[in-house]
Amino acid sequence: MHHTYINGKITESQNATIGITDLGFLRGYGLFDYFRTYNGQPFRWDSYWNRFETSAKKMGIPIPISKEETHQIVMQLLGMSGLQNTAFRLILTGGFAADSITMTHPNLVISSEDIHPVPAVQYSEGIKIISHDFVRDLPEIKSTDYKHLMILKPTILAAGASDVLFHKDNEISELSRSNLFVFKENVLITPNAAILNGITRQVVIELAKPFFLVEERPLKVDELFQADEVFTTSSTKRILPITQVDKTIFSEGKVGKNTKFLMQIFDKMIENYH
Amino acid sequence: MHHTYINGKITESQNATIGITDLGFLRGYGLFDYFRTYNGQPFRWDSYWNRFETSAKKMGIPIPISKEETHQIVMQLLGMSGLQNTAFRLILTGGFAADSITMTHPNLVISSEDIHPVPAVQYSEGIKIISHDFVRDLPEIKSTDYKHLMILKPTILAAGASDVLFHKDNEISELSRSNLFVFKENVLITPNAAILNGITRQVVIELAKPFFLVEERPLKVDELFQADEVFTTSSTKRILPITQVDKTIFSEGKVGKNTKFLMQIFDKMIENYH
Repeated sequence: MHHTYINGKITESQNATIGITDLGFLRGYGLFDYFRTYNGQPFRWDSYWNRFETSAKKMGIPIPISKEETHQIVMQLLGMSGLQNTAFRLILTGGFAADSITMTHPNLVISSEDIHPVPAVQYSEGIKIISHDFVRDLPEIKSTDYKHLMILKPTILAAGASDVLFHKDNEISELSRSNLFVFKENVLITPNAAILNGITRQVVIELAKPFFLVEERPLKVDELFQADEVFTTSSTKRILPITQVDKTIFSEGKVGKNTKFLMQIFDKMIENYH
Repeated sequence: MHHTYINGKITESQNATIGITDLGFLRGYGLFDYFRTYNGQPFRWDSYWNRFETSAKKMGIPIPISKEETHQIVMQLLGMSGLQNTAFRLILTGGFAADSITMTHPNLVISSEDIHPVPAVQYSEGIKIISHDFVRDLPEIKSTDYKHLMILKPTILAAGASDVLFHKDNEISELSRSNLFVFKENVLITPNAAILNGITRQVVIELAKPFFLVEERPLKVDELFQADEVFTTSSTKRILPITQVDKTIFSEGKVGKNTKFLMQIFDKMIENYH
């Protein structure tokens, strides 16, 4: 059973509530991070914690407990879940504000959650996505601001797509909650501006470097549509092939061979994660 | 004592909580409106309700109860407060999402709140504000997204200022939570793009029209700095004079005569509001 830590107290997640004067709720003044365990260990804990710290610093919200205390709570919640592996969400907000605007003490929430795996068919056949002209506000901060995705959901569904890819001024940034990679022949390219610093993105870059030329640089919309293979990366999705963007089909609608290779070595790495 | 309605139940506001899987809290998928009563009557109820409806429609969140039911709850909460006048906040979010992303039933919160009046000295002497290059995402929706204001707060305080004025591509839009007006001689100008449709802004335009030429149009940054008088409007602030933006001082650092006139007729109107 999942449990939630809120400012020092742990309750069953289904009963976990927050006062309505929380500035995350009232003013969107909140950030989060999200990671999972493999083999009972938080995956890339140092990287996720660093990102959480960076988001908090950029948002001006101090984290009320240390990295070590947070790790202890995560391991305690994992134990209480009775599961070998689970997902975790850290949420940090500006805290309660009686006047609805002034920050005093931040609120910190730590929850274990079910892992929501991507359906297997999406790995074997790839997904379809649509593109949309937009850039996320403060993309380098993992803020709780996903209203554009929520507003676009009916459009995504109507197109028979799984997600949305953002571009602005002819440059690709990222999907709604994941990063983008393309292969042009054996060169692996991923945008490096107006994106969230994905931990899985970093891991994929590291894993790919012995095998492919990797370019972290701006990616034009045209380049995307002329790519040979396309995939997205996130903590939940790992490496997920994209076979269609709008009306353009990639690698004949099948998972490309380079993508397939990266998926295999990524899975091998997590199989042995310790 | 203030009370809060949440999805059909009324509790004391100090005990009002929301489950942490609320999409407003988790994903910034929430909007609100805020109004006050004068003489025990919700000010411009029809206008505020229309704006709330418009925000909800643009965010794709259905309002679970009718205008009439909402009005009844507002009057009930006013009665329970024991006060003649109070402020009200309506908050509408995408509801609880066990998977942290899928909307099912919206959450509606209605709270009575203390009115936080602007200090009298700010009306008699005017306020100082700073300008900042930014345009609010989806400005026409009264979303809960105020993270830029929150992030800028230390900068505003360090400048000895009260608020921030946003501009982008050489055009003025609005302050963090209020609209902007300037007088150039006897012409009253207010931006009409990339702004929230302020109810007080509309009322001021109506009140001013018999006395001044009113122009709702784009306002360049240069025009602002060459204006004779500057003021801001909001539900809480009513008409609040601005005597300084960055290093530029207006009307010799005093409240301008046209602004003073509008403040007087506005106050006269609310004195008799029924």
